[in-house]
Amino acid sequence: MPTDAPDEQLVRDLDETGLLARIFPLLPAGAATLVGPGDDAAVVAAPDRRFVVSTDVLVEGRHFRREWSSGEDVGRRAAAQNLADVAAMGARPTALVVSLVVPGDLPVAWVTGLARGLAGASEPSGAAVVGGDLSGGRDVVVAVTVHGDLEGRPPVLRSGARPGDVVALSGVRGWSAAGLAVLSTGGGAAGGRPDGGPSEDRRDADVDRALAAYRAPAPPLADGPAAAVAGATAMLDVSDGLLRDAGRIAAASGVAIDLDGAALRPDDGLVAVADTLVRAGGERGAGAELAATWVLTGGEDHGLLATFPAGTALPGGFRPVGRVRTAAAGEGRVSVDGAAPRVSGTGWDHFGGR
Amino acid sequence: MPTDAPDEQLVRDLDETGLLARIFPLLPAGAATLVGPGDDAAVVAAPDRRFVVSTDVLVEGRHFRREWSSGEDVGRRAAAQNLADVAAMGARPTALVVSLVVPGDLPVAWVTGLARGLAGASEPSGAAVVGGDLSGGRDVVVAVTVHGDLEGRPPVLRSGARPGDVVALSGVRGWSAAGLAVLSTGGGAAGGRPDGGPSEDRRDADVDRALAAYRAPAPPLADGPAAAVAGATAMLDVSDGLLRDAGRIAAASGVAIDLDGAALRPDDGLVAVADTLVRAGGERGAGAELAATWVLTGGEDHGLLATFPAGTALPGGFRPVGRVRTAAAGEGRVSVDGAAPRVSGTGWDHFGGR
Repeated sequence: MPTDAPDEQLVRDLDETGLLARIFPLLPAGAATLVGPGDDAAVVAAPDRRFVVSTDVLVEGRHFRREWSSGEDVGRRAAAQNLADVAAMGARPTALVVSLVVPGDLPVAWVTGLARGLAGASEPSGAAVVGGDLSGGRDVVVAVTVHGDLEGRPPVLRSGARPGDVVALSGVRGWSAAGLAVLSTGGGAAGGRPDGGPSEDRRDADVDRALAAYRAPAPPLADGPAAAVAGATAMLDVSDGLLRDAGRIAAASGVAIDLDGAALRPDDGLVAVADTLVRAGGERGAGAELAATWVLTGGEDHGLLATFPAGTALPGGFRPVGRVRTAAAGEGRVSVDGAAPRVSGTGWDHFGGR
Repeated sequence: MPTDAPDEQLVRDLDETGLLARIFPLLPAGAATLVGPGDDAAVVAAPDRRFVVSTDVLVEGRHFRREWSSGEDVGRRAAAQNLADVAAMGARPTALVVSLVVPGDLPVAWVTGLARGLAGASEPSGAAVVGGDLSGGRDVVVAVTVHGDLEGRPPVLRSGARPGDVVALSGVRGWSAAGLAVLSTGGGAAGGRPDGGPSEDRRDADVDRALAAYRAPAPPLADGPAAAVAGATAMLDVSDGLLRDAGRIAAASGVAIDLDGAALRPDDGLVAVADTLVRAGGERGAGAELAATWVLTGGEDHGLLATFPAGTALPGGFRPVGRVRTAAAGEGRVSVDGAAPRVSGTGWDHFGGR
């Protein structure tokens, strides 16, 4: 039954109509929306007679924990990782729809926070939330489908990389994995300080940056269309780790990729976070080595990895990180400085946990 | 770990790539697919520079039970209820994407059955499955997003009904609710006979029809575009019961709807199913009355309810079931033969269970 204190309301206190009435006003409109939420379906503009579409699902206990991430964090992350898939085709996001499963004991404020996060991550890209569905269930599930406009350009697939191309990356490297490591070793609840004690401001800022990168990644969305305009031959968003995702371009294109170890040296701040964890005993190995592993195998950064013909002026935030080479029989498809990467894993698998 | 007996494999025996490799070959291609599954996103044709989009989620324990429905049933139902939303805009389905959450102990055969069901329900309409995402989780969740092509026509919204219009329905009425009632009273496991004893063939056929309608509804998809071509002024798919969904057209259009009791008399077979349940003690009241309640309030039939200007030659399977009237202050928006409907509920709510 409804209470007088809206902030303490639970999902089970409202019916579907009542919950939707809380969510709709929070969602952004978009220029491409011809018919918005409220009918059987929405209608979205597709100016060049095509649309790009991708779907991604976040599951409580698998992709996030409610004690580690707010509703707004989860909304931002769900939008960001989907928007990155559209950007990675070279398209501009236009519209999202969201299927949301919520337990009855979930605070309504968590759901409205999720809507605010979806809106906050979508609005700057011009994308609207045009529809959705709500259901009860034991665990929170957020399934987002995102659409984009190729603006008349061919899509940038994974399969177009050619020997001689420059490999370039836009976006952060390893920071989401660092944030997850901080939380996994107990550093999240106490404001981001793994040791719970005093630490210098700079290190706090680095840990906070890692936590923010994990909770709500901010992919360089505008660099997707910019890469397409600049002539990118292949592109994807880095969701499962740089080595694994570079391997996907290599496999789809029938080439090898050699990454440049110096160009992928971890940020100083990332090493500082790793040092903090190593000192606190939460992770094994030297800080620099741990940070390098995050850069090469950390998932969920959602940067854009692309290949460009040699000599291309790299657009936006793209920086060179390697070269495309001819695939030779018997060699690994992704190398670092010409040798097999010195890390144990090559990414993560959604069924194996992590 | 993998076993030699594929039929007994569980989801946890495969990684994401391995499970996708089982699913992809089962999915239909479609004429509108420009880039199919396997990249960051798919690309779909939108010939008239617009696309229709809708999303719906099915959750185990809420919308289906694994002991009542096979994977193929759930796949058919997930596709059908989404395709009906596109048809209800007057559009032709083009493409689906699917986010799927599966527990580790789910048989792989259940998942491939789901893919077959999605394919079987989509292919006749020309729609392809162009993408998806997979995750582990405690309960099965199937979130489908469907797209359609308006073929140059304006979308048929809920808000266009005008006084004097004919109200017409295409599709079955009450059969899904009857199937759910059979299963809820224990009739599902024993081949559809609630009493477990011998019964005449005809009654068995009726019960089987009810079970099939619940497990895998078959909306009259082609009647959506046909209604648009014929000049339908408003349309929706009946997902939450005829009274409740007629009320949505009435509310959106600012009109009243008077349904024709004689035109909505339950099929003989539906009354036979109700009689069987009443005799078995599973439901209260006379069979005819129970069947009438299923017709007026049963959800999930996914027929198409539309309004047409008076005198329109009704297309396809549409049959007249009422009239649009001017909304008068103080009167209920949906009536039957000019009076308030004689049923207790007006549909169902997804949070309230049922």
